[in-house]
Amino acid sequence: MNPRIAIDAMGGDEGVSVMVAGAALARHRHSDFKFLLVGDEARIKSALDDHPNLRSASEILHTDEVVSGDDKPSQALRKSRGSSMGLAINAVKAGDAAAAVSAGNTGALMAMAKVALRTMPGIDRPALAALLPTLIDSDVVMLDLGANTDCDAGNLVQFAVMGAAYSRVIYGFDRPRVRLLNIGTEDMKGTDELRDAAAHLHDSTRLAMDFQGFIEADKINRGECDVVVCDGFSGNIALKAIEGSARFVTDLLKRAFTSSFRSKVGFLVSRPATELLRHHLDPNNHNGAVFMGLNGVVVKSHGSASVGGVANAVEVAARLVEEDITDRITRDLASIANGGDTAS
Amino acid sequence: MNPRIAIDAMGGDEGVSVMVAGAALARHRHSDFKFLLVGDEARIKSALDDHPNLRSASEILHTDEVVSGDDKPSQALRKSRGSSMGLAINAVKAGDAAAAVSAGNTGALMAMAKVALRTMPGIDRPALAALLPTLIDSDVVMLDLGANTDCDAGNLVQFAVMGAAYSRVIYGFDRPRVRLLNIGTEDMKGTDELRDAAAHLHDSTRLAMDFQGFIEADKINRGECDVVVCDGFSGNIALKAIEGSARFVTDLLKRAFTSSFRSKVGFLVSRPATELLRHHLDPNNHNGAVFMGLNGVVVKSHGSASVGGVANAVEVAARLVEEDITDRITRDLASIANGGDTAS
Repeated sequence: MNPRIAIDAMGGDEGVSVMVAGAALARHRHSDFKFLLVGDEARIKSALDDHPNLRSASEILHTDEVVSGDDKPSQALRKSRGSSMGLAINAVKAGDAAAAVSAGNTGALMAMAKVALRTMPGIDRPALAALLPTLIDSDVVMLDLGANTDCDAGNLVQFAVMGAAYSRVIYGFDRPRVRLLNIGTEDMKGTDELRDAAAHLHDSTRLAMDFQGFIEADKINRGECDVVVCDGFSGNIALKAIEGSARFVTDLLKRAFTSSFRSKVGFLVSRPATELLRHHLDPNNHNGAVFMGLNGVVVKSHGSASVGGVANAVEVAARLVEEDITDRITRDLASIANGGDTAS
Repeated sequence: MNPRIAIDAMGGDEGVSVMVAGAALARHRHSDFKFLLVGDEARIKSALDDHPNLRSASEILHTDEVVSGDDKPSQALRKSRGSSMGLAINAVKAGDAAAAVSAGNTGALMAMAKVALRTMPGIDRPALAALLPTLIDSDVVMLDLGANTDCDAGNLVQFAVMGAAYSRVIYGFDRPRVRLLNIGTEDMKGTDELRDAAAHLHDSTRLAMDFQGFIEADKINRGECDVVVCDGFSGNIALKAIEGSARFVTDLLKRAFTSSFRSKVGFLVSRPATELLRHHLDPNNHNGAVFMGLNGVVVKSHGSASVGGVANAVEVAARLVEEDITDRITRDLASIANGGDTAS
């Protein structure tokens, strides 16, 4: 019996059709996937007409209440029992699904998931983790990306454990290379929280990671480490700065390529090269931010994700369930508590 | 009688030759510039042989002591009286020069400048400000970029005043558009410090700026605001993330363009376009980070800056002196103190 994935079919800019088509694509690639599709039954059924393969593997849970993009977390919490997002999360809580995927309002999703699923033993605060592209074949896991504005050293150590477990699940690395985001690599750089977390991780030699100290933000995409750990404020700033800068450069490039006839000709001739660039930078190829540290797997798909992007998010959720991410994190936390750590 | 600029001729990866050639280029563009060249006299004289135009406008201050790139700020401070960096700063303090330019160790330069020149009245902490490229004709001023790891609301308000003064001096804007870097644009987002600073700036209607609230890091380069204000930790993370991401995209582009014969042909045909991109992203065209808030102008040139980059840094220093940046900041601070601010 395969665990199934609850899909909030109503979230995302495009709504039902993209979410259902994304689930269908994931199911096309993995014939053992099962789904609980949550949302407006008529619209889901209509979308399923195009995907008989998905229909046979899905159950529909009807609701006509939705969380809107403008709902504040406090407003969204009032929709916990009735909305498609809330019902998808509650299905995980009740054991009716092993993971939930939503493309809805991130703040609402985090608030609902935290209240419904609670943090797992040994984790004080959940964190939002995502995959970022690098110069090498594997993506880098980065967390926290915005769940916690302030973090203490203990939170950062827990994020490192969760990020390393994520990297091991996705890429099968035995000991992912982990670094803390800082404004310099020397021991004395940064905040007290960062220095304390670094000391703690250096001393915790039995963890399933290779902790390598600090990393500066210009190295995140170089492929020199597998997990970047930071508080949610810095992480959000870094993530958005990276996205904005990549967009800035490609905008300049477009402008340059359309500035003269000669450039236009060059652009047409070299289009396969720029397509390759677009493919590598396309957020859909890295879609699926994971809300880590809860008693259950919750994955946020980007609001504007394509069908392929939604399928990637579904596959991330399935992989985390299959590889039992929660159990891996629990074991690593136990190794800190049971003497893997000489500092405390 | 024109004010002159003290040049730490020994800093930077290339040392004397690039610093002297950079000063010569600036002098070539502005025949009224005068210089105090600080460092090894024999090497400076030798470098001046190629630049008779600069020699006639320069005095040499000899020393053979230098601050190295590895010196910690505390070690560098012991070289305040004897090193080329220390003597250049002390020339500003003594009134022998109106500004100092160095391409040496940033931490050392900040420590020495702060101790020798002290913060100007009304400023609690100095900040490092730089110009970043945008999609529009003017660069965006961003500060603090690393001088202060933690900042309170008062610091952020002072940085806003200094950054706006910088933007007015460089571009002549009457009321530069100022924003605070945050992880969202809604009022309740971010830290207490950011929310308090925003409330204070919204209420300070008589300041020579148009305060427009928060900005997220993906918008820094869009040209939608003229000054981005942040604490030194966030600013350093954002700046390096932007640099790293731009380099990442151009590295991918290079890889893509060399992946097939067709792409190579396209690249050659469209080289003017990629040259334009390179020009726009070249840090030399935005060289010269200003250490703001001191009793005197101190400009940091990038260690690997080209001759053109050094000339830009010298011109930034000269412009700040000519336009009396210190006086502008003082007047704005007074407008906060004298009732421009209804909140305090």
